[in-house]
Amino acid sequence: MLSRCKSLAAAIPGCRPVSSFSLPSSSSIPRTSPALSLPHSHSRTLSASARMSNFKQEPHKLLVIPGPIEVTDEVLYANAHPSMSHVSPDFIPVFGDCIRMIREVLFAGPQAQPFIISGSGTLGWDQVSANLVEPGESVLVLNSGYFGDSFADCLRTYGAVVDELHAPFGTAVELSSLEAALKSKKYKLVTFTHVDTSTGVLSDAKGIAEVVKSASPETLVALDGVCSVASEEIQMDAWGIDVVLTASQKGLGVPPGLSILVASEKAMKVFEARKSPVTSYYGSWKKWLPIMRAYENGSAAYFATPPVNLIYAFHTSLTQLTKRAPSLQERFALHREASARVKKAAEELGLRQLPLDSKYAANGMTALYFPDGLVASDLLPRLGKRDVIVAGGLHKDHKEKYFRIGHMGVSVVDKMRGDIDKVIAALKESLAEAKASKNV
Amino acid sequence: MLSRCKSLAAAIPGCRPVSSFSLPSSSSIPRTSPALSLPHSHSRTLSASARMSNFKQEPHKLLVIPGPIEVTDEVLYANAHPSMSHVSPDFIPVFGDCIRMIREVLFAGPQAQPFIISGSGTLGWDQVSANLVEPGESVLVLNSGYFGDSFADCLRTYGAVVDELHAPFGTAVELSSLEAALKSKKYKLVTFTHVDTSTGVLSDAKGIAEVVKSASPETLVALDGVCSVASEEIQMDAWGIDVVLTASQKGLGVPPGLSILVASEKAMKVFEARKSPVTSYYGSWKKWLPIMRAYENGSAAYFATPPVNLIYAFHTSLTQLTKRAPSLQERFALHREASARVKKAAEELGLRQLPLDSKYAANGMTALYFPDGLVASDLLPRLGKRDVIVAGGLHKDHKEKYFRIGHMGVSVVDKMRGDIDKVIAALKESLAEAKASKNV
Repeated sequence: MLSRCKSLAAAIPGCRPVSSFSLPSSSSIPRTSPALSLPHSHSRTLSASARMSNFKQEPHKLLVIPGPIEVTDEVLYANAHPSMSHVSPDFIPVFGDCIRMIREVLFAGPQAQPFIISGSGTLGWDQVSANLVEPGESVLVLNSGYFGDSFADCLRTYGAVVDELHAPFGTAVELSSLEAALKSKKYKLVTFTHVDTSTGVLSDAKGIAEVVKSASPETLVALDGVCSVASEEIQMDAWGIDVVLTASQKGLGVPPGLSILVASEKAMKVFEARKSPVTSYYGSWKKWLPIMRAYENGSAAYFATPPVNLIYAFHTSLTQLTKRAPSLQERFALHREASARVKKAAEELGLRQLPLDSKYAANGMTALYFPDGLVASDLLPRLGKRDVIVAGGLHKDHKEKYFRIGHMGVSVVDKMRGDIDKVIAALKESLAEAKASKNV
Repeated sequence: MLSRCKSLAAAIPGCRPVSSFSLPSSSSIPRTSPALSLPHSHSRTLSASARMSNFKQEPHKLLVIPGPIEVTDEVLYANAHPSMSHVSPDFIPVFGDCIRMIREVLFAGPQAQPFIISGSGTLGWDQVSANLVEPGESVLVLNSGYFGDSFADCLRTYGAVVDELHAPFGTAVELSSLEAALKSKKYKLVTFTHVDTSTGVLSDAKGIAEVVKSASPETLVALDGVCSVASEEIQMDAWGIDVVLTASQKGLGVPPGLSILVASEKAMKVFEARKSPVTSYYGSWKKWLPIMRAYENGSAAYFATPPVNLIYAFHTSLTQLTKRAPSLQERFALHREASARVKKAAEELGLRQLPLDSKYAANGMTALYFPDGLVASDLLPRLGKRDVIVAGGLHKDHKEKYFRIGHMGVSVVDKMRGDIDKVIAALKESLAEAKASKNV
């Protein structure tokens, strides 16, 4: 059928090859109404290709874990794009647009260098460790959970000398501790987990960057934004963040499979001045920098085959994020609003949050202890029965004691979906049922 | 619409959550007719999900480059699977099936260890270099083109001492040279590019493994199968290949984004016996081995979020490859047959192949010099006008002189598509038109 359709492409209206899926020019797309409430957002954010197809994803249970998150039909349809050459003139501007648009999401200027690479978010740690740190150099890891441990492990693998500041469980590292550490020793790099997916603990990105700039201005600041980009505000330039690393499957609203990193001009200068060879091959910016520059400049270059379909999906999502209503600032407000609703409902149900204070609580997820007498198997299957999928605990010392709800992306931005209402209602019912069954 | 559909899921027939996309048991699926010619293969290979949706990919130009290749509607539809948790009981067996089925494609026994990781094929080189070689150990690279250079570069990045045997352009390394090298020096590992995508040169995998086993039985043999897996026969166990590394977007018929590697029991023992730490984090088998074992055994474990949608797509393609007609051996025969047709047509048109002898010519692609007086811009746009996308040259010393046609996967297996006929017809017409325009 396909080949017949292709051979008749010229003759049949509506059966023509798709040759200009990419948006012709980012700036030519008008932003629609900036209203926070979006009764018709679904139809207003339809991309060209989805309008053509009216593709609808399969009915499924609502996925509200802290990533992967629910993604739009338009993004999934882009992920089902027919095979395309990675050097096709049709694909090159799509990749180039992604490089440009991810800067917008992070409020980074044109000097910031994005890297969009096939891989998991974890690969971002390798990129930082292998490109920005030379063996024997010192790094300070602000450790607020599982992902701080892992980032430190990665840095050590590539030869860094790592010191860690451990925050008590449920909190982030105090800025005063950071300041003291920076005054006692010279660090090449400070890293922190913006939102630790294992605990829902939020770190103060702006505050951390301020302390580093004041106490040790040469030190680079790397933000692990896997669980924060596009759901928490990040002002790379204004705050002075040197690296933001993330993945596609959380706030960015794309299936997993992209390692996304943006490095500041200062970080790129540090990279270019390194004396020893880069200690990774697949993660080497020496290899990737010419590729990113080529695609951004409208030509193709080859190091490894880019994940073409995921790049189309990312393009669709980035277009929704940066060229459509609501604006990024409005999206952050919607995340705060949804987070407050979930946390308030949890409090009313007597559920205690992992973060010990609201200043440590992320806006894209909520981590909650089970009530006394209940365990995961009492609650999670009951939520599942109501078509709501949440996540269990992840932090190694506490994982049996709590569960996690993700509220990011389309689930909070498109209120007409009713996802947050559904989560809260299912939580209420499931908890009541579980308590009744155990006489708690 | 989606959320309404979800909430009514229980009440509306055909609107139920998709909870058993995975095949219940590999062995329970009968292989259908083994006929080589497949008049109805398209409908016979429909997966459960595609039958539900009748999803058809957008009309598009025929992509016959040496990867990415054309993929089936079923595979693309699986790539548009709704977001799923990577630890969902529904997803775990899908990943487990992929681990089991890739062994079948490579004729590897249950002791062989697959690694399926988010990344490009290139990441397979890092895996070999960082896990199987310790800094200072010697590796012999059989270099038959661009990808031999790169593999050597990667090995050196991780500290290997690399010797290279360079084959003259258009040929593979002679087995006698390999034997002599192995007798003159002890190597931990021999690597070769099974099909060099830059030249279409095929190496004799079985012969190389035989020579290594005879001349230096302890030496490991790593096959770079990015451009050969599922289009050229590879008998891992019978031939004694220790590593096959590949990617998803060529013979395996999936969009790009998966680094796929299978290590023999011997390779895993060498890995486990290493004395120095693994020199990569993201590519470390110490990290990935527990994950692969967990998913294969029916439970989830976390190191980095797997590319869930690509795993669904891979599952669909592996099911088509290993559980449906035609069989793998029949598929290899279909690749040889299509390759012979393309190469014969090229010869009749006076086009000379890069490989200097048919024994060096791959079956999944054809690399052809432009005739005297013609260049890429004379021929490739004319093929494009006829909706056929081929690739230009890639080898750095010769890339202006030749072009490449891919003939892998569904384009050769599903004859009803008529892809090979279309390629040959377009080549004839375009060449005649180009020659006429230049008076060649």
